[in-house]
Amino acid sequence: MGIVVQKFGGTSVGSVERIQKVAERVAQAHAKGNQVVVTVSAMGKTTDELVSLAKQMSDHPPEREMDVLLTTGEQVTIALLSMALMQKGLQAHPMTGWQAGIHTDAIHGKARIDHIDPNKIKKCLDAGEIVIVAGFQGISPDGEITTLGRGGSDTTAVALAASLKAERCEIYTDVTGVYTADPRIAPQASKLTEISYEEMLELANLGAGVLHPRSVECAMTHQVQLVVRSSFCEEDGTMVKEAGQMEEEMNVRGVAHDLHVARIKVLGLPNQSETLSTLFTRLSEATINVDMIVTSEHEQERISVAFSVHEEEGDKAREVILQLQDELGYQDVISETGLAKVSTVGAGMVTNPGVAARMFNTLSEAGIKIKMVSTSEIKISCVIPRDQAQQAVRTLHTAFGLDAKHEVLLEA
Amino acid sequence: MGIVVQKFGGTSVGSVERIQKVAERVAQAHAKGNQVVVTVSAMGKTTDELVSLAKQMSDHPPEREMDVLLTTGEQVTIALLSMALMQKGLQAHPMTGWQAGIHTDAIHGKARIDHIDPNKIKKCLDAGEIVIVAGFQGISPDGEITTLGRGGSDTTAVALAASLKAERCEIYTDVTGVYTADPRIAPQASKLTEISYEEMLELANLGAGVLHPRSVECAMTHQVQLVVRSSFCEEDGTMVKEAGQMEEEMNVRGVAHDLHVARIKVLGLPNQSETLSTLFTRLSEATINVDMIVTSEHEQERISVAFSVHEEEGDKAREVILQLQDELGYQDVISETGLAKVSTVGAGMVTNPGVAARMFNTLSEAGIKIKMVSTSEIKISCVIPRDQAQQAVRTLHTAFGLDAKHEVLLEA
Repeated sequence: MGIVVQKFGGTSVGSVERIQKVAERVAQAHAKGNQVVVTVSAMGKTTDELVSLAKQMSDHPPEREMDVLLTTGEQVTIALLSMALMQKGLQAHPMTGWQAGIHTDAIHGKARIDHIDPNKIKKCLDAGEIVIVAGFQGISPDGEITTLGRGGSDTTAVALAASLKAERCEIYTDVTGVYTADPRIAPQASKLTEISYEEMLELANLGAGVLHPRSVECAMTHQVQLVVRSSFCEEDGTMVKEAGQMEEEMNVRGVAHDLHVARIKVLGLPNQSETLSTLFTRLSEATINVDMIVTSEHEQERISVAFSVHEEEGDKAREVILQLQDELGYQDVISETGLAKVSTVGAGMVTNPGVAARMFNTLSEAGIKIKMVSTSEIKISCVIPRDQAQQAVRTLHTAFGLDAKHEVLLEA
Repeated sequence: MGIVVQKFGGTSVGSVERIQKVAERVAQAHAKGNQVVVTVSAMGKTTDELVSLAKQMSDHPPEREMDVLLTTGEQVTIALLSMALMQKGLQAHPMTGWQAGIHTDAIHGKARIDHIDPNKIKKCLDAGEIVIVAGFQGISPDGEITTLGRGGSDTTAVALAASLKAERCEIYTDVTGVYTADPRIAPQASKLTEISYEEMLELANLGAGVLHPRSVECAMTHQVQLVVRSSFCEEDGTMVKEAGQMEEEMNVRGVAHDLHVARIKVLGLPNQSETLSTLFTRLSEATINVDMIVTSEHEQERISVAFSVHEEEGDKAREVILQLQDELGYQDVISETGLAKVSTVGAGMVTNPGVAARMFNTLSEAGIKIKMVSTSEIKISCVIPRDQAQQAVRTLHTAFGLDAKHEVLLEA
């Protein structure tokens, strides 16, 4: 048997009892003859509690120090899970990010994995140990502790699987798989038995919340076979793999949403070639992820640009732009929060130009105001008022024929 | 100005507000032109909470995993204290044990510092940063996280001071200095303005609780000037230094006590030369600290030996001996808990043989049963029933003339 990487998120390790349940599941995989590497997050609300301590200490907690603080959460979990496995008579070996050889760049709070040195892990696996790695963390070239940002434990798991050439990477979470929409918002949503990397990437980026987008990207690049399943039941999950291996491609596979969107409009920018370049370079230097970008017609002397960011980064983005007022010479900047994004995703959409039209019509007939639009080969996204997001998801789910049991169609 | 190392214990960093107070004190030392290195413990009850989590996970939590778990406590504190200093506009640099170059042996839970590589700290100090080091922890030759055991943060501070050739090492604690006895037990106790390393070492070993014995040992070896003072007030503390530098040597400098003593008696051991050697070698291999040892007369065929250990290690010591029954061929083993040790300490005692006699008389007149006795050049210790410990400390304090204000005598 080969190497299996299992990842358990914060809810799955939220208490002593749950960690003991995780230990049982890990022990099962080990008993089947697999070499098992486990990646874990911090227990339940630990990260939030640590963030709250930091905010009491500093108006803007510095990022390197935040990383030192937050990484203790996973370190507690690896110790406890190892103890639980050893209590069962198994050999376990806890490793922090730096011990597991996870080397990142130096962008604290949002570091990217540069490479993994898997020698220590391999040595321990060959000695019969189950290796328990702290997710979400690594070490910078300067020897400082870094974090990959929220959701980074998924990335840790996939990167480990790629580096160890693992047979598969199992992401255990609090849902039973990937759904055609969030079942809490669209009760008619159904579970997908399989989905392509590309579709999953769009869904992840669009806030489906099941998998961190970077982890899907990494899985796609390294052809790591991903399984998303529940840590609380034995139900089969969703397999994420190559599109070519799938039986059928649907027009629209799912409806995703993101309830935390801010839009920023910069008005009256001089229409010079370097203006937009400067603007988005500075935002990127401030490590702000810009999502959608729309500009007004370019024929005039001055143009306007609107872009969307995660709501948490709205203030920071606005600050960056205010500092650029002299340099860019724009007339005004307006930021708007309380927005959401709904998206339809499907690998078959590229050959089916009617999808966009149907999406706009559906939203418009439901009286939902579309504020921004962005399209790719396999998705169409609309920014709308947040208070209409739930209605939008349900309406689109029905309009694109997703209310029918999806598995049936796939296996037809 | 030179390098100053400051150590703040768990009570001193027990809350957000207290960490902010510590930041003020650190900032003061920095403002005076010192290069400042700070060592901190885990916040208040953190360590106890982590131990409780571990005990829920495992009957006997494995020690390597305990170290991974417990070291998160100090890591949280270094992050928060750095944030508090940076909030004041100072440059701070948090470092875990491994980042600070603290190399230990591989005895988890009780590791000893092998050497410190101070290069990273020096580089940061020279760049104007205040360096905040997690106390109590280091890294083993295998790259595993180790802890120095409870009280190890004192040792971290002194070892750092030695390695950095610091001007002095300030130990901030919840008491204002070293007293002639524990004021909670003997209200007539008074603060010492200075004390020799040797005396402090005996007091530390005897459970005075102000400084960890290993830290005093390390300070003595490397001639690190120690100051013990309160983190809650500006009062001068107690200076710990070379005996030769002190103005006068007293007969008895203080009365110490330890309320957690267990005694183990091994009866009917064959009187062979290797028997005792085997017994104590095995106890040492199990990393049990044996304190006092008393043996019966050696003329007979079989002998008995009694020794004392910390109460927490009583069961483990008994187990080790039970496993040696076949090898040693002793007749019985009896362990007794509920004991305490009281000791009188003073560098002048060696030239004053009457001290022992006066101590035994005093205890005996007070109706206190002496169960074991041990003496060194500068201390005499007696094991007595725990419920008589408080009475013993007070009576001895009075009998040796310590009730008078001590400072007056010293400065006479």
